[in-house]
Amino acid sequence: MIGEFDLIKKLIPLLPINEATRIGAGDDCSVLELGIPDRQLIFKTDAVVENVHFTREASWERIGSKAISRCLSDMAAMAGNPISALITLGIPQDFLEEDVLKIYEGLIRRAKTFGVSISGGETVKVEKSVFLSVSMVGWIRKNRLCLRSHVQPGDALFVTGELGGSILGKHLDFVPRVKEAQWLAEHFDIHAMIDLSDGLSGDLRRLIEASGIGVHLLKESIPVSKEAKLLAKERGTHPLNHALNDGEDFELLFAIAPNKSVSVLDAWKETFPGLRLSCIGKAVKEPGVRILSRKNMFLSENANEGILGDNGYDHFK
Amino acid sequence: MIGEFDLIKKLIPLLPINEATRIGAGDDCSVLELGIPDRQLIFKTDAVVENVHFTREASWERIGSKAISRCLSDMAAMAGNPISALITLGIPQDFLEEDVLKIYEGLIRRAKTFGVSISGGETVKVEKSVFLSVSMVGWIRKNRLCLRSHVQPGDALFVTGELGGSILGKHLDFVPRVKEAQWLAEHFDIHAMIDLSDGLSGDLRRLIEASGIGVHLLKESIPVSKEAKLLAKERGTHPLNHALNDGEDFELLFAIAPNKSVSVLDAWKETFPGLRLSCIGKAVKEPGVRILSRKNMFLSENANEGILGDNGYDHFK
Repeated sequence: MIGEFDLIKKLIPLLPINEATRIGAGDDCSVLELGIPDRQLIFKTDAVVENVHFTREASWERIGSKAISRCLSDMAAMAGNPISALITLGIPQDFLEEDVLKIYEGLIRRAKTFGVSISGGETVKVEKSVFLSVSMVGWIRKNRLCLRSHVQPGDALFVTGELGGSILGKHLDFVPRVKEAQWLAEHFDIHAMIDLSDGLSGDLRRLIEASGIGVHLLKESIPVSKEAKLLAKERGTHPLNHALNDGEDFELLFAIAPNKSVSVLDAWKETFPGLRLSCIGKAVKEPGVRILSRKNMFLSENANEGILGDNGYDHFK
Repeated sequence: MIGEFDLIKKLIPLLPINEATRIGAGDDCSVLELGIPDRQLIFKTDAVVENVHFTREASWERIGSKAISRCLSDMAAMAGNPISALITLGIPQDFLEEDVLKIYEGLIRRAKTFGVSISGGETVKVEKSVFLSVSMVGWIRKNRLCLRSHVQPGDALFVTGELGGSILGKHLDFVPRVKEAQWLAEHFDIHAMIDLSDGLSGDLRRLIEASGIGVHLLKESIPVSKEAKLLAKERGTHPLNHALNDGEDFELLFAIAPNKSVSVLDAWKETFPGLRLSCIGKAVKEPGVRILSRKNMFLSENANEGILGDNGYDHFK
């Protein structure tokens, strides 16, 4: 079995780059310099596979919507403006045309909501499991690059929405935080941003590795969703574990200078009254993730051994 | 069973477009206006699937090379300058890491040859057949758009290389005609261009439908490859049928004003002495494809009933 993180580490140094490639593999999107005044191109692809990312219990419309929303969420993580998508659909021989049209209904509805064109694609035959891959281009402002690698020690860490239990439905119906991310980048100096696709613990690890910092999380500040609580009750687990480790929240995690914490919270509440924004902790110089309770009680020294459990959702483990 | 052409016809009118989208679904690449001075972005995705586009008899390096070359060929069809690629690889649970690295060897070698960066990608788990999808962005000059839809009646039709029998090896090892296409667009007013992926007959039909014209082909001018002859001998078929109907030649088919025929042939011979260029016929007002012999003998009135047999390679038939 192949570990996804290990494979990426082996592959990245081998990949060819050229002078147009500003950010290659390893961030939410690649960033290309193509001579657009004041702007750079962002480029992303994301695939969902039957029985890995979805089952046929969900409607094909929701599966289509999920596939394009995942790509939109990656564009959001860069405060990007999504422009156009291409669709690759793999279907078995006996797949019904009406189901292809339903998948496209989901894709099209979501694309329209975000002003994105679907400028092409292809349908290919596969032997068994359906797959749906979305490629997307968009643009960002040159002076407002939100990478994973620019967290500063002392930065406040914020997360949008509520975390955990997305398997109960949110993983299909989440709304990518495109306009929220654009608003953040327009009004504040966002040091770093990432979308939560593999669970807070896994994506925090990516942020930490890319920025060479550590993190102190405040246990009581982590926004635990009611779905995380429901799942914990059903399974006899701890709701916080779901908020930390469940995949596919597709919320934003970002870092900002600590003296901007109050103003970002105030302005956020006025602009997005229906969506929670939580300061969940701060970046520190010492590596690793520590979870502190409100009384500064030390709970776990090492994310890998403590309450974080594992490193988030890894497709190959 | 779903017919690919029929499905595309149903889907295209439903797809959302926006003001950036100059050419959407239906040409070799989509064309986007993103404010690059004198240039437009081209955007393409292409997937190969195990037991459809390749089998494990081929080495993984060749399969990787094929996947990225197909995308490069689509960029060539627009006289495009490929810039960057993203890779989506779907592999079953028991797939070996060393084979992933071999696929990337093939991808990387070809990307380097054409100066293309691989700026990211992902590896996802699938239940059975391996798939490999490549997304690519590039650029074209605004005043040198080579679409499928601009063939004029009277235009001379040219094809590069030799056709048919690619299943014997060329479908894995073909060299995408990127530099040839760029040279053509730079030195001549190319009215229309397409790369031959689904067989001359199938791709001619696309050109004809997009441009609203017909075609007279000169039977003796169609460049039949030695592989087409070999295959015909083995199977008791006619070599011309292979040249007309076999898929995956990945040569260029283009249209040019008839008074430029001699000069394009002369300049081509000097620039690309190792690669054949053939004038295979001309565009006419009357719809359909007619195949004439050198004595102007009428062989077939309708491509669907005559020597063309079928409409090229359709993945779902």
